[in-house]
Amino acid sequence: MQETRLDTARIRSARQVIDPMFRDTPLYYCEALEPHLGCAVSIKLETANPVRSFKARGTEVVASRLADDGSRAVVCASAGNLGQALAWSGRARQLDVTVVASRFATRTKLDRIRALDARLELVDGDHELARERAAAIAQREGIRLVEDSLDIETCEGAATIGLELVDAGPSFDAVLIALGGGALATGVGHVVKDLAPEVEVICVQPLGAPALTHSWRQRRVVTTDSTDTIADGVAGRFPIRAVLDDLLVVADDAVLVREASIIAGMRMLLDHAGLVVEPSAALGIAAVLEDRDRFAGRHVAVIVCGGNVDMDAYRRWVGAPIHTS
Amino acid sequence: MQETRLDTARIRSARQVIDPMFRDTPLYYCEALEPHLGCAVSIKLETANPVRSFKARGTEVVASRLADDGSRAVVCASAGNLGQALAWSGRARQLDVTVVASRFATRTKLDRIRALDARLELVDGDHELARERAAAIAQREGIRLVEDSLDIETCEGAATIGLELVDAGPSFDAVLIALGGGALATGVGHVVKDLAPEVEVICVQPLGAPALTHSWRQRRVVTTDSTDTIADGVAGRFPIRAVLDDLLVVADDAVLVREASIIAGMRMLLDHAGLVVEPSAALGIAAVLEDRDRFAGRHVAVIVCGGNVDMDAYRRWVGAPIHTS
Repeated sequence: MQETRLDTARIRSARQVIDPMFRDTPLYYCEALEPHLGCAVSIKLETANPVRSFKARGTEVVASRLADDGSRAVVCASAGNLGQALAWSGRARQLDVTVVASRFATRTKLDRIRALDARLELVDGDHELARERAAAIAQREGIRLVEDSLDIETCEGAATIGLELVDAGPSFDAVLIALGGGALATGVGHVVKDLAPEVEVICVQPLGAPALTHSWRQRRVVTTDSTDTIADGVAGRFPIRAVLDDLLVVADDAVLVREASIIAGMRMLLDHAGLVVEPSAALGIAAVLEDRDRFAGRHVAVIVCGGNVDMDAYRRWVGAPIHTS
Repeated sequence: MQETRLDTARIRSARQVIDPMFRDTPLYYCEALEPHLGCAVSIKLETANPVRSFKARGTEVVASRLADDGSRAVVCASAGNLGQALAWSGRARQLDVTVVASRFATRTKLDRIRALDARLELVDGDHELARERAAAIAQREGIRLVEDSLDIETCEGAATIGLELVDAGPSFDAVLIALGGGALATGVGHVVKDLAPEVEVICVQPLGAPALTHSWRQRRVVTTDSTDTIADGVAGRFPIRAVLDDLLVVADDAVLVREASIIAGMRMLLDHAGLVVEPSAALGIAAVLEDRDRFAGRHVAVIVCGGNVDMDAYRRWVGAPIHTS
């Protein structure tokens, strides 16, 4: 494999500093999905932890290093899940955590960030404006800015999921990974391509937030003017060059899916797997639904990366199968 | 501690034959529940596996021993979860599995038993009739009858949950355990009382299926003529003497909860923890809801023991928070 910014040995050591509550997450074959998808599906479940997403794997690494260095404060921009995770990891290590988010972010995520004692600052714009604001705060206060996907800890933390997939002795042919900033995809992709290169690494992004997928396809950074997707966790517009470079090494494919497929995926995970997932976590199932022939008879691993939803919105999305009778 | 039929060393070895997919399940502090319950809650999640309940811990032990002995077939009566688990564990070891169930059992559970290649026989009565029928089949065919809670493997398999709770270094004051046949309660209770006796062991049963709780309170087997509860997984009428004896040793309390509290518990786990659980798995939360003063400011561990629900019924139960808008 060509080099990436990531290193498998370093990922193995990163794993040691992650609270066990966030590691060794369930990995299981969900047979009930198979008749509906036409392929075998193994689920890697990242929602059964205190922050209900995979993001704490990265923030545990960041916060533990900051604490070792005697740092007192840290700031990040977040669509909501990174902020919760950093708030959790920081609080556990007596760090002051500031999170900058869009005022349009998922309310539950913002409420949880506050409940975890972080300082929450809202900007009147999208996630890219929150990134600018967080950078300004870091500079002004001279504290560490955590940049999701750019900072190697966020990628290597996420990559520990890849270790767990590979260490289980992967019987699957492909792994389907939500693509947002790229930490999850480059992290898991690096480990899979390093240790189980025969497994196909497929990134999945919404058609309404396609910047990194377009960038991957054109092998150059492509930005977009706006995003339009319910998958708030992956709705970025400005791909990071270094992340794209890594993604070009580790991804076998990057596909775009429709909103209707994301919703159908969420419903399917509720009805047949009993899982409440946020839109980003249904991207893998959505990809299968949009290209059944490609996956027919194969065995795919799907990383269910987050479960933070506003229940009102969730109610609308999965409205058909769950309603007041 | 007084002796029970269980043995902690034997439970540790039982753990070795259980497929890793069913072991080391998530155990995490769910802060979002705290403001709604007035106490800290740690969740031990037994639903993220191929059969969506804890029952495979026991059937893995049974089936692995049967396979070692060269057995070819096994039969059990089940309200649905044991049957699924035995079907899964038996299929993995080339055992012919027969499950006897009530025709009124949860349809999803029956469908999943069939999908796992077990022979399913339905009786026109409740779970106690299914137990009689399974015993007759075992006698006629000369094959092993698995009797939930009576057979030590089912208790010691369930008891491995207790090991994982205790090995995590329990910070909790009490563990709340669904009480049905008693395998889960005596199993987990044995380990907790053996290794962490300061932790209170509280069993929770529906008011509509109170036989074992009444038996525990009166220190003698008390049967009932019928059951009336949505918590199908714990709806027995004929407690087993040997199980009661163990329960008298390990349980600090046994409480009964109303159906409305079970439903409120299911809603709360959905709304604030993002978990789809079956009624039996909400008994612990229901117990807190019915006696907030008892648990105020304490830290309880709740075993979320199963997630197999008919979605139509689930839709009705959680109808208020999730509906078509």
